Amino acid sequence: MTSGMTAVDVREVGPRDGLQAEAPVQVFDRVRLIMALLEAGVRHIEVCSFVSPKAVPSMADAAEVVAALPEIAGARYVALVPNLKGAQLAIDAGIRELSVTISASPEYNEKNVRMTIGDSVDAIEAICALGLPVDAVVSCAFGSPYEGDIPPADVAALSHRLVEVGAATLTLADTTGMATPRRVNEVLAETGVDIGLHLHETRGTGLVNAYAALELGVQRFDTSVGGLGGSPFAAGAAGNLATEDLVHLLDDLGVETGIDLDKLLAASAVAADVIGHPVPSRVAAAGPRTRLAAG
Amino acid sequence: MTSGMTAVDVREVGPRDGLQAEAPVQVFDRVRLIMALLEAGVRHIEVCSFVSPKAVPSMADAAEVVAALPEIAGARYVALVPNLKGAQLAIDAGIRELSVTISASPEYNEKNVRMTIGDSVDAIEAICALGLPVDAVVSCAFGSPYEGDIPPADVAALSHRLVEVGAATLTLADTTGMATPRRVNEVLAETGVDIGLHLHETRGTGLVNAYAALELGVQRFDTSVGGLGGSPFAAGAAGNLATEDLVHLLDDLGVETGIDLDKLLAASAVAADVIGHPVPSRVAAAGPRTRLAAG
Repeated sequence: MTSGMTAVDVREVGPRDGLQAEAPVQVFDRVRLIMALLEAGVRHIEVCSFVSPKAVPSMADAAEVVAALPEIAGARYVALVPNLKGAQLAIDAGIRELSVTISASPEYNEKNVRMTIGDSVDAIEAICALGLPVDAVVSCAFGSPYEGDIPPADVAALSHRLVEVGAATLTLADTTGMATPRRVNEVLAETGVDIGLHLHETRGTGLVNAYAALELGVQRFDTSVGGLGGSPFAAGAAGNLATEDLVHLLDDLGVETGIDLDKLLAASAVAADVIGHPVPSRVAAAGPRTRLAAG
Repeated sequence: MTSGMTAVDVREVGPRDGLQAEAPVQVFDRVRLIMALLEAGVRHIEVCSFVSPKAVPSMADAAEVVAALPEIAGARYVALVPNLKGAQLAIDAGIRELSVTISASPEYNEKNVRMTIGDSVDAIEAICALGLPVDAVVSCAFGSPYEGDIPPADVAALSHRLVEVGAATLTLADTTGMATPRRVNEVLAETGVDIGLHLHETRGTGLVNAYAALELGVQRFDTSVGGLGGSPFAAGAAGNLATEDLVHLLDDLGVETGIDLDKLLAASAVAADVIGHPVPSRVAAAGPRTRLAAG
C-alpha cells in the first residue's frame, strides 16, 4: 500500500445487482437481507431498481421494498433507474439518491438498452434534471466483450460529459471482468481517482484490481454481499466482487469501512438463505483468516 | 507495478499438489497432463512425490511417471520427498531436483508429519546431503490455523536455518490461505524477496498476494494448473492459485513466463478431463480477457 488510505466507502449492491440475477425473492426476504446488512454497519445500499417487472421480474415491487426501509442515521438508500419514468417512480416511493447506467462500449450499450451512447447521455440528463443526486455507472469501462479495450481517453470523455449533464458522482464498472491492474492504472490516469469502482470476479481479478485501485487512491467501491450477481447480458459475466472479500482485505490493511466482518458474514448467510443456494464468496466459504482452528 | 519486473519463474505443481488431492489417476493420464503443460511452454514442474502409496494413493507409481518424462531442453522436473527413503527412490528414478516441506507452524508440523520443526530440519539436512538441489517449502509462512500469524522473524530464522543445512532455494507457502498483501510485506521484509511463493485462493487472496509480491520483486511462484489441489490436512484449505489465473495477470502486466496462455488453457482442459470434474480456475471458466465475443 502506497496511498496511505485510511477509509473507504463500500456501496452494497447485492439487494439490487445481486438479487436481479436470481429467481424472484419476496419483498419480506429482500428487506430481511437489507436489514442484515444494516446490522453489519453497511450504510450505503443500492436497494432496488425501478424497472419494468416484465423485463426484470426479480426487481418487481420496488416501492414496497423502499417503504419497508428503516430510517437510520447515515443510511443512504439508492435505486437504479433506467429512465425518467423509473426515476419518477423512485422519487414517488421516497428514494433520495439514484443510480443510472451507461456503457463506454457502443455495442454493449446498444445490446443492453437499445440506445446509442448519445441517447443514453440524454436520458441521464433528463433524470439528473429531477434534482436528486445521481451516480452514473459507466459499464465496460475496463474492456468490452465487443470492442476490447475502450480507449481510456474515451472513458474519460464520457465521464466528463456525464458530469456536465448533471451526474453528481461517477462509478466505473468492470461489467464483464476484463479489468486488470494495468488497465485500472491506464483508465484512472485519464479519469482521475475521484470515482467509484464496480469490480467483477469473472476472471478472478476483482480483489487484485481493488488493491491496485486502493494504491492509486480510489476511495469508493461497489460490492455485492456473497458475490451475488453480475450482468445477465454478457456471457460469463457473473461474479460481482463480494463485499466480505473486500472488507476482509480492507480490515487486514487497516482501512476503515464501518462494517463488522462477522456480522457481514451473517448477512451473507441471510443472502444464501434468501436465494436458496450457496454464495460464491470465498471468505464466506472459508471464514476470515482471523478465525483459527478450534483446540 | 513498481518493481519493473520483466520475467518470473512459474513452477507448476498441479501434477503433484493438484492430483494428490484427487482420486488416483492412472500414470498415462498423469503424464498426459505433464505433456500438455510442456506443450504450453511450462518448463518447471513438480511431477510427483515419492511418498507411501498407502498414505497417498494418488501419488503411487511415481517412478513410472518419471520414466515417462521427455528430455526437453530447459525442462526441470521436481519430486517432492518426505524423507531420506523417498529421496533415494526419487534419485533412483532419475529425478535431479527435490522439494521438501516443513512448517513454520509448530502445531501444523506436528499434525502434518508428526515431527517437531527441529526434527524436520534434521530430516531435510539428511536429504540435502545427498547432493541434489533441494527446494525447502515452508508451509504456514503467512499464518497458521493453530497459532495465527507466525512472527516474521521466526519464519526468517527457519528459512535461514534451512539454507544453513543445505537447501538450495526456499519457497514460502500460504498453506491455508491466510496471506494478505500486508502479511506478505511483513514476512518478506524479514526473509528478503529471493524466495518462491506458493499461494492459495482459499480466501480469494491468491492473485492479490501475487501482485503485492511482484511489486516487492518476487520472481518465483508455485501455481497449479486449473487451481487444483491444496492441503488435505487443513479444513477449507483447497485452492492453489491457478497457473492460468497468474499467467493471465502476468501477460497483461507484460511479465514474461515463457508460457502460452491459450495452450495452458488446453492443458487445464486436460486436467479437468483427467480428474473428471471442472477445475476451479476462473480464467479457465471465463476465458482470457483478450477473447472477445464473436460477431
